[in-house]
Amino acid sequence: MRTLTGLQPSGKLHIGNYFGAMQPAVRLQDEGEAFYFIADYHAMTSSRDAAALRVNVRELATDFLACGLDPSRAVFFRQSAVPEVNELAWILSTVCPMGLLEKCHSYKDKIANGISPNHALFAYPALMAADILLYDSNKVPVGKDQKQHLEVTRDLAVKLNEAYGEGTVVLPEPIIREDTALVVGLDGQKMSKSYNNTLPIFGEEKPLKKLVMKITTDSTPVEDPKPTEGSTILALYKLFASEEDYATMVADHEKGGCGYGDLKKRLAEAYWDYFSAMRARRAEILSDPGYVDAVLAAGALRAREEAAKVLDRVRKAVGLA
Amino acid sequence: MRTLTGLQPSGKLHIGNYFGAMQPAVRLQDEGEAFYFIADYHAMTSSRDAAALRVNVRELATDFLACGLDPSRAVFFRQSAVPEVNELAWILSTVCPMGLLEKCHSYKDKIANGISPNHALFAYPALMAADILLYDSNKVPVGKDQKQHLEVTRDLAVKLNEAYGEGTVVLPEPIIREDTALVVGLDGQKMSKSYNNTLPIFGEEKPLKKLVMKITTDSTPVEDPKPTEGSTILALYKLFASEEDYATMVADHEKGGCGYGDLKKRLAEAYWDYFSAMRARRAEILSDPGYVDAVLAAGALRAREEAAKVLDRVRKAVGLA
Repeated sequence: MRTLTGLQPSGKLHIGNYFGAMQPAVRLQDEGEAFYFIADYHAMTSSRDAAALRVNVRELATDFLACGLDPSRAVFFRQSAVPEVNELAWILSTVCPMGLLEKCHSYKDKIANGISPNHALFAYPALMAADILLYDSNKVPVGKDQKQHLEVTRDLAVKLNEAYGEGTVVLPEPIIREDTALVVGLDGQKMSKSYNNTLPIFGEEKPLKKLVMKITTDSTPVEDPKPTEGSTILALYKLFASEEDYATMVADHEKGGCGYGDLKKRLAEAYWDYFSAMRARRAEILSDPGYVDAVLAAGALRAREEAAKVLDRVRKAVGLA
Repeated sequence: MRTLTGLQPSGKLHIGNYFGAMQPAVRLQDEGEAFYFIADYHAMTSSRDAAALRVNVRELATDFLACGLDPSRAVFFRQSAVPEVNELAWILSTVCPMGLLEKCHSYKDKIANGISPNHALFAYPALMAADILLYDSNKVPVGKDQKQHLEVTRDLAVKLNEAYGEGTVVLPEPIIREDTALVVGLDGQKMSKSYNNTLPIFGEEKPLKKLVMKITTDSTPVEDPKPTEGSTILALYKLFASEEDYATMVADHEKGGCGYGDLKKRLAEAYWDYFSAMRARRAEILSDPGYVDAVLAAGALRAREEAAKVLDRVRKAVGLA
């Protein structure tokens, strides 16, 4: 079984990215052959800053490795290191009805908001289909927001096989992650860069802990019991703490006598400790300036090898070879 | 100066293709560095027949060489032999407003005719822009029907340069061919495969000459003068005959006494003779089974070399490298 995960290099990663995407992605390397790519072509649909793209790709690569991606087992590469994906996207476009792309939410939302999108944003699901089909991926973990795009991928795979023969491409299955929206931000909304309510994975101790102190709370006096239902502190603490510690934290909410300041400090500690091993690994990676490039180069080689096999098969089927 | 010409492999070539596109294209190799490609990716927007695509590409290559394309001077290649073009198409798509593609006639016409086009047909002008910009083409000969697509190319070049710096891509100039619609078919309409009124460039003598005899004429009796205005025989004869012979043919129309059958026979001779050298060259090409492949392989090498330079520059500019 081969799984494939793509992550967009869109700036500093926060713990919403970690628990929602990176952690479940990294776990896939224990379950079979895992392919991971940094979706730099996709990032270009919403940014035209070359320098930022370079920085973001490097940061994402560093962070992904720090968070446990093991390049000795997984294949880790930059999307644009396998430009062959664009050829497959074209081939898929020839069997892709316009209606299939027009009905995609991410595009329709932009239109509804009065934004005139660029063609790459419209064509995004066709490139995503190529990303997946280029590696004969069997399973693709997707958040709910990407579920529709995976359906487009499956539709296109079926259409290509209908037009050019069964087996031209492999039909992938989704692994739907139900819990990606579950990480709450500092203000109690979903954690998201656009809400400016995030906790970064990496950073300096003081500013990170200070962020935790900014969590929005109600005005329950120190001595009174604190509500546990809808508590941002508890929701975040649950991500970092053992079951035992979490139970203690709940009890300390319920019995009263602990101020929000103290509860937040305990959360800040747990948050800081949770990522300490990854922080150490990250420092190690950064101390070797050639490491990330070497990992990505090796990954690109492996990925291109696989892509060449699939593309060779597809090109023969459609008459380009 | 570098010119670029693409021709779609869409089946047997007729003399409308020859005088409208091939002959003016072939002349460009005398005026500078000429690039010619067989647009097999584009052909996939309207056909899903792998075997037909293979045959059509080979026939077009053979015919183009027979008609005078000189591979020792020009660069002749198959579009899909330089798959890098798809990467540039993606990059251009990120600066391409949807409106620019939506307003293209070839797409709008399909919509107006109730046809639901595929995404590749919609994206066609973006790939065409990449075809042109990938080789730093200075001049691109286009028929009137492709004029708008060249404007899209120029728009995208300007937008990419605006977003990522002047000189990222070279702005091409069109060479508008005014006369592409001038070849009349057997029925007096524009010669076109879809009207079933064509004269092929190549074929066996008897059936080709028979086609000429099918030209629609009026019922003027043999002894009467024939109208020269709107005469299909004269319009076609002009393409093949010397000025002197043409003047004789006009005179023979005007004075009466020549039947349409005789006039057509003279046209058939001129048509057959006009392509005799190309027919001989074609037979020669076909007698060497490896020749066409070798020419296309050498052309692809040259084209990829040029493409690599341009793409390298573009990738650096946009932050992919």
